[in-house]
Formats: sequence, structure tokens, C-alpha cells
Amino acid sequence: MMKQYQGYLIDLDGTMYRGEEKIEAAADFVKQLHDKNIPYLFVTNNSSRTPEQVAAKLNAMNIAATPEHVFTTSMATANYISEQIHSAAKVYMIGEEGLEHALKAKGLNMVDNEAEVVIMGIDREINYEKLSKACLAVRAGATFISTNGDVAIPNERGLLPGNGSLTAVVEVSTGVKAVYIGKPEAIIVNQALEVLGTPMEKTVMVGDNYQTDIMAGINAGMDTIIVHTGVTSKEQLETVEIQPTWSIASLDEWEF
Amino acid sequence: MMKQYQGYLIDLDGTMYRGEEKIEAAADFVKQLHDKNIPYLFVTNNSSRTPEQVAAKLNAMNIAATPEHVFTTSMATANYISEQIHSAAKVYMIGEEGLEHALKAKGLNMVDNEAEVVIMGIDREINYEKLSKACLAVRAGATFISTNGDVAIPNERGLLPGNGSLTAVVEVSTGVKAVYIGKPEAIIVNQALEVLGTPMEKTVMVGDNYQTDIMAGINAGMDTIIVHTGVTSKEQLETVEIQPTWSIASLDEWEF
Repeated sequence: MMKQYQGYLIDLDGTMYRGEEKIEAAADFVKQLHDKNIPYLFVTNNSSRTPEQVAAKLNAMNIAATPEHVFTTSMATANYISEQIHSAAKVYMIGEEGLEHALKAKGLNMVDNEAEVVIMGIDREINYEKLSKACLAVRAGATFISTNGDVAIPNERGLLPGNGSLTAVVEVSTGVKAVYIGKPEAIIVNQALEVLGTPMEKTVMVGDNYQTDIMAGINAGMDTIIVHTGVTSKEQLETVEIQPTWSIASLDEWEF
Repeated sequence: MMKQYQGYLIDLDGTMYRGEEKIEAAADFVKQLHDKNIPYLFVTNNSSRTPEQVAAKLNAMNIAATPEHVFTTSMATANYISEQIHSAAKVYMIGEEGLEHALKAKGLNMVDNEAEVVIMGIDREINYEKLSKACLAVRAGATFISTNGDVAIPNERGLLPGNGSLTAVVEVSTGVKAVYIGKPEAIIVNQALEVLGTPMEKTVMVGDNYQTDIMAGINAGMDTIIVHTGVTSKEQLETVEIQPTWSIASLDEWEF
């Protein structure tokens, strides 16, 4: 007997698809949420894309999604700065389109010098000058924020450096630890719950990665569903201390 | 009463000069070594320059030096790979001219793929593709070596990211710690002693930075002289547990 949740936070890579590959049960899972009018929100640590781009990718896989169904760590970062620092903060950003889009949408002030906040998201155009500017600003006292701590990005070549490893340059050089926004932090989950509008105790987090998705749910105090279609295997899950609320091999096992 | 040393290992930045600025006592200190026929070797964690370039800089400051008086961490790295791995090892290098020059001079095989060894030295042309190649090779089992762990480089703009902070990208992403060659490791000191040809217990390490120069001497079991013309102040020195053998405000206080 499964619990009736009023809202779903859903991971993307490994849960809805694997890179460019469909996960067959995903489209039907989301269709059921849609048909039953159960609110859902995709929550992703990928800071590089805009909600429009994410929704388009999902639609191409027949998954029901509008940009309003997407909550990226870039959006969570922009909200965090706007709420915790100030709404016109001067920010120096290292990152790609999705992050720039989110920061500008919040009306934050993008600067090259005298930044109050340094933000790092994955940037495949990273270079020494960008890293230097970030180090100088952090040493000068700027608040240091990282969209997410993922150390590796799966790719057809293997595991490439993730944003957590790029963030390490500035952390190691300056001795200042970044504030991380993305999963497994509760910050992104609490913001996503606010967007979704359902109460935490009646909402569930769905994902394939124990260390990020499930830990994010646990850290925020929510129920969680792990689905073994991505990073964390059944065997690996046996070794962790705090178990997810539910564990399924595929999303089609889930009874709403 | 100062001890009569038969050989000197001497740091550069902060000891012989500060960036582009002369340290007045340096030229005379080296002149006395030269005139007394005491062997000396400049030992530097700067992997970016060739011995010829380093000697030219010293000569421009009236400091007696030939390329044979210079031992860089790039040379130490090339020696280490040649001796500890093998003399025709396939290496993937991230670094600048000094490192490339040293690796080629040892006859190592520079490759882009299927590297047996990944070497990181400071590279101000660092980019995501270089970091990706390093991560993929290290995950595939390549030995991971870093020329030096310095986290920051002083510059007229402030402290810029040092090689230790760039190395952190690959360490954090792969979970593999690099073997560090430069000061404070004993590896570079033991090699420098071999080049200098004087016995460890009759040679002294001279430098301004307690954490790198002096710790390198201590780790190698040598006597050390700290000179307070660079990084470590007298006050900071009071807080460290293992004191250098000698401590002077300026090299002109030293009696040979």
C-alpha cells in the first residue's frame, strides 16, 4: 500500500531519462500525475539550461512538462541571493546560459569587478582569468556560492569534471568554502516546495541518486522514492544508513 | 657562531627577489657563495619557466647564476617519472613551457590519449577540455602527479589560483590524490641534493616560506635558514612547532 502524496518533486537525469536515452516508464509516470491533477515539479542540479530548454527536452521524450514544471539549481541560486543577500546584489558569475538567464530574471546585477557575491555553476568555457576574478573577489570578502557540488558529469566519453570540482579551485585557493544550493542541500528542496505549493509532509522526492536526490529529501525532512534506473544500485542502497521511504526498480511499479 | 655548510639550496621568490622587485642582500649573498666556491642550487616550485629563463632573470638582478644553478619542480617531476615509472612513459601534461621543456628533455612521451601518467603544473591556458582529459585518464588508471601544491600565486592584482588549486579539480572529481613533487615534499629536495652533490647533513635550505621551503628542508632532514623577506613573518614563525635551524631578518645577516 503506497501513501497518497499531494505533490511530487522529480529528478531528471537517471529518473526521467539517461543522457539522451529515454527511460520508458517515465512518460507514463508523469502522465498519471498530470491526469490525476497531482502537482509535480522537476528539480535539477543542472545549472546550464533554462527551464524552456529542459521542458523542450522532456516534451521530445513525450513527457508532459511546461517551463513552469522545471526548477533548476540556477533558479534556486538566484532566489537565494535575492532573498538572503539583496535583490540588486552585484554578482560575479562563472557559468553557462541557464545560470545567466536565472540571475538576470531575478534582476541581479552582473559585474566583473567589486562583486558582493561570487557564483559558480558548471562552465565548459572555464579559464584562468575567470577563476582569478572569482578568487580575488572571494578574498576581498564576496559571499561565495556554488550552484551544486556534483563532482562529475556523465558523458559518452566517461565522467567529466562537475561543478563541485571546479568550485574546488576557488575553495582551495582562498580557503573559503562555498555555500552550495543544489541537491543534497535542503535549500533547493525548500524553494521547490514553495514553488510547488504542497506541504512538505505530503510531498515526495523521486530520484535515482541516493547521495543527491534522496539525501536532499532526507535533509529537507521529506519522504523519498529511490528508483534504480540511474546512479544508485539496489546493492549500493543496502550499505546506506538512512533508507529512502520507498525503493522501486522502475517508475511503473509505483501505485498512485 | 654559524655552522659552515658545504652546500646551499636556495629559494627564489621572497628570498632572491619579490616578483619583479630586487631583494638587495640577495646578490651579495650569492656572490659570497660564488667567491668561496660553495656549491649552491636555486630550488623553485615555479614549473612555468625553463632554467635558462630563470637564470636570465637572476642575472638581470646581478645574481650569479647559470642554468645549471637552477632546479625547478618541472625538472624534479620529469626525473621522478623517469625513475619511478619508466623513462619512455606516455604522459598527458597540463602545464606551461617550463614543464613541457623538462618532460621533453627527459625523453618522455607526450600524448593526448592513453596516458600512463597525468601531470599537472600551473597552466594559465587551463580549460575544460584539458581538465576533462586529465580526469578521464586518471579514472582509467593513470598515475596522477602534480608539480606543486601551492594554492596561490602572488601577483600585482593579488593572490591568483596556484597549481594546487587547479590540481584540486581532478582530485575532487576523481577522488584520486595527486603525488606532489615540489616543496614542502622531500622529493624535490632529495633530487636537488643529488644535483648539488653535497651531503644532506652538510647542506642547508634557505627560504622565506615556512610552509614550503622550510618544511621541505625539515621533511628531507636538512638544516634550514628562514629569512623574513617574503611570506612568513617573525610573528608567524613563533606559532610553529618545529623551528628552522636559523632565522634571520635579511640575508646580509648571514655569516659564512
